[in-house]
Amino acid sequence: MREVAIIGIGMTQFGELWEKSFRDLVAEAGIKAISDAGIEGEKIDAMYIGGMSTGRFIGQEHVAPLAVEVAGLQDLHIPAVRVEAACASGGVAMHQAYIAVASGMYDFVVVGGAEKMTDVVGGEATNILASAADREWEAFFGATFPGLYALMAKYHMHKYGTTQEQLAMVAVKNHYNGSMNPKAQFKRKITVEDVLKSPMVAEPLHLLDCSPITDGASAVILAPLDKAKEYTDKIVKIKASALACDTLSLHGRKRFDSLPAAVHAGKKAYEMAEIKPEDVDLAEVHDCFTIAEIIAIEDLGFVEKGKGGKATEEGLTSLNGEIPVNTSGGLKSKGHPVGATGIAQINEIVLQLRGEAEQRQIKDAKIGLAHNVGGSGGTAVVHILEVV
Amino acid sequence: MREVAIIGIGMTQFGELWEKSFRDLVAEAGIKAISDAGIEGEKIDAMYIGGMSTGRFIGQEHVAPLAVEVAGLQDLHIPAVRVEAACASGGVAMHQAYIAVASGMYDFVVVGGAEKMTDVVGGEATNILASAADREWEAFFGATFPGLYALMAKYHMHKYGTTQEQLAMVAVKNHYNGSMNPKAQFKRKITVEDVLKSPMVAEPLHLLDCSPITDGASAVILAPLDKAKEYTDKIVKIKASALACDTLSLHGRKRFDSLPAAVHAGKKAYEMAEIKPEDVDLAEVHDCFTIAEIIAIEDLGFVEKGKGGKATEEGLTSLNGEIPVNTSGGLKSKGHPVGATGIAQINEIVLQLRGEAEQRQIKDAKIGLAHNVGGSGGTAVVHILEVV
Repeated sequence: MREVAIIGIGMTQFGELWEKSFRDLVAEAGIKAISDAGIEGEKIDAMYIGGMSTGRFIGQEHVAPLAVEVAGLQDLHIPAVRVEAACASGGVAMHQAYIAVASGMYDFVVVGGAEKMTDVVGGEATNILASAADREWEAFFGATFPGLYALMAKYHMHKYGTTQEQLAMVAVKNHYNGSMNPKAQFKRKITVEDVLKSPMVAEPLHLLDCSPITDGASAVILAPLDKAKEYTDKIVKIKASALACDTLSLHGRKRFDSLPAAVHAGKKAYEMAEIKPEDVDLAEVHDCFTIAEIIAIEDLGFVEKGKGGKATEEGLTSLNGEIPVNTSGGLKSKGHPVGATGIAQINEIVLQLRGEAEQRQIKDAKIGLAHNVGGSGGTAVVHILEVV
Repeated sequence: MREVAIIGIGMTQFGELWEKSFRDLVAEAGIKAISDAGIEGEKIDAMYIGGMSTGRFIGQEHVAPLAVEVAGLQDLHIPAVRVEAACASGGVAMHQAYIAVASGMYDFVVVGGAEKMTDVVGGEATNILASAADREWEAFFGATFPGLYALMAKYHMHKYGTTQEQLAMVAVKNHYNGSMNPKAQFKRKITVEDVLKSPMVAEPLHLLDCSPITDGASAVILAPLDKAKEYTDKIVKIKASALACDTLSLHGRKRFDSLPAAVHAGKKAYEMAEIKPEDVDLAEVHDCFTIAEIIAIEDLGFVEKGKGGKATEEGLTSLNGEIPVNTSGGLKSKGHPVGATGIAQINEIVLQLRGEAEQRQIKDAKIGLAHNVGGSGGTAVVHILEVV
């Protein structure tokens, strides 16, 4: 297996983009990534695209050839593959693209993610998202994602004494970070009081504990490390790419205070990268709900199990903390176009490692980690990147 | 890249399986393949699953962890990936699994495909399938798949003199073959007259020119060639796995008498396998409509462009012809559970190469080819298998 680098990144504005179609979003992110890499389109060997429920959000499956057509690469007949893993679709697409380049099968690969979620009416988005849970055993009985994560939050509060305020502090931190990210859906700072006063969605999760419904796309360009030098002098290497799965349903798990697939993917990634959690300089984690970030920083070994709430309160994960988490604003403030999220996380890590994150730049960031989760933890992907 | 073999196959009955859920189908095909290989579940390193529109057919996205859960492998947290490429979902999953094993990333990989299509009401299935066409530029204006393939048929008839009877002969042949396949949805033989008398769906395609709506699942087990010997003495090697894409929309193409992506994938596969079309002993091709088989045998180089109808009439592709095509009954008679089709084709080729195809067995079959198409040719996958 060869070493693999990221030579280009691109993403659209995240938000309610009523004037843009899925096609527009894919084109914009792809063109930005290709321009950033300074590579000619004809050099592209293959494409991977992550999309969760394009069939239900916009009535369009089979989006890989759509991406080929949008890129104008149809006459080269390059292989293109859509990957679906709910909210981890982007991360899993990245994992597949990594294998494809590492194996020697392809050299230059575009990997993107996109979702156009705001074309459906209100509650329908929540119903579509519930297709990432176990339809027969969870969703049909009314357990949508806020409900499933609320169960985890309740258990975490009961077992470890995590508080509503600590949950809220995740949102406050991520909105603060997002206020410095021009691509973020929500750029306003919020307070703990704002979160606690916002409407209850599924107790104990308030509206401001939840990530939003978002349109957006993101893309990166992968290349073998030895060819990356021709395109950039700020080479970001993929030190690890690990994917793990679990039961689709939450009720099938042995524990509710952790996503075992994420623990497993994290361990595999640390082994592959030959590093420890304390070597990570910053992380983008899957904060679809505030409780999810608290569980994530525990699962990834940044803090002991049960200490995630306290650590957040003490500022460990803030922009100037020991391990800044979600410098982009995370899913909470940057927005969560489900298929795009995994690749948007990679975008942020690359920006930080290149020193291009402007106001929200972490000093001397060398190693970054991205943690992308599908559903209630049926799928988890961890990538570790290093600037070389 | 390592050589890769198929050490196990399994598939469910194809048909209207109202008493079985998607979950049941995945379990049955997977267990059959694992039993056929004689491998313990704990040896499985990864899973790939092809499904086209599970989100719309059964309200369930994120089916990869569902497959892990069904297989009881959740505590191993093995990586599992869903791939979607419309009716080529199975073939593309196979291609990804091939890369994963060939690269050395994983040893034993289950690759499956499944679709549960008969739980939606009548016309809705056609609408869901139309999400594999270009929704914005084709489907919204009423161009569903029978219409798109009818355009190709009309053009082929106009340009090359292909007749309605020749189209019908594809269906007659495939129903004859399917009558000997216990897994086929339709086991009754039909005549040219039956086809021509059946209701018109989209001129010139009659009902019996069209493949049906089907429930079903199929699976195969891949292993590195050097480890395959421990599990079977009838080793079937993957000589080639090639994927190519094109525009999503039919109107964007330069020609309508060919699927350029299939031509491209075919050429790549022949190069990779170091063989010529005349070396192929049998083929499973994507006969979603009768015209599709005629175009396929031309695109794959079995006959010259424009001669597909005549060749079918002359029996070239019949069970005792020079190059038997769709010995399983094809999509037409065996049925077409879209996500499962690509893997079901591989199942048939393996049966034939092992000499286990019973009544429909081709004598001395050594090399078989599978041709799986998504939509109107936006995606095409060609696999070439050889018994060693």
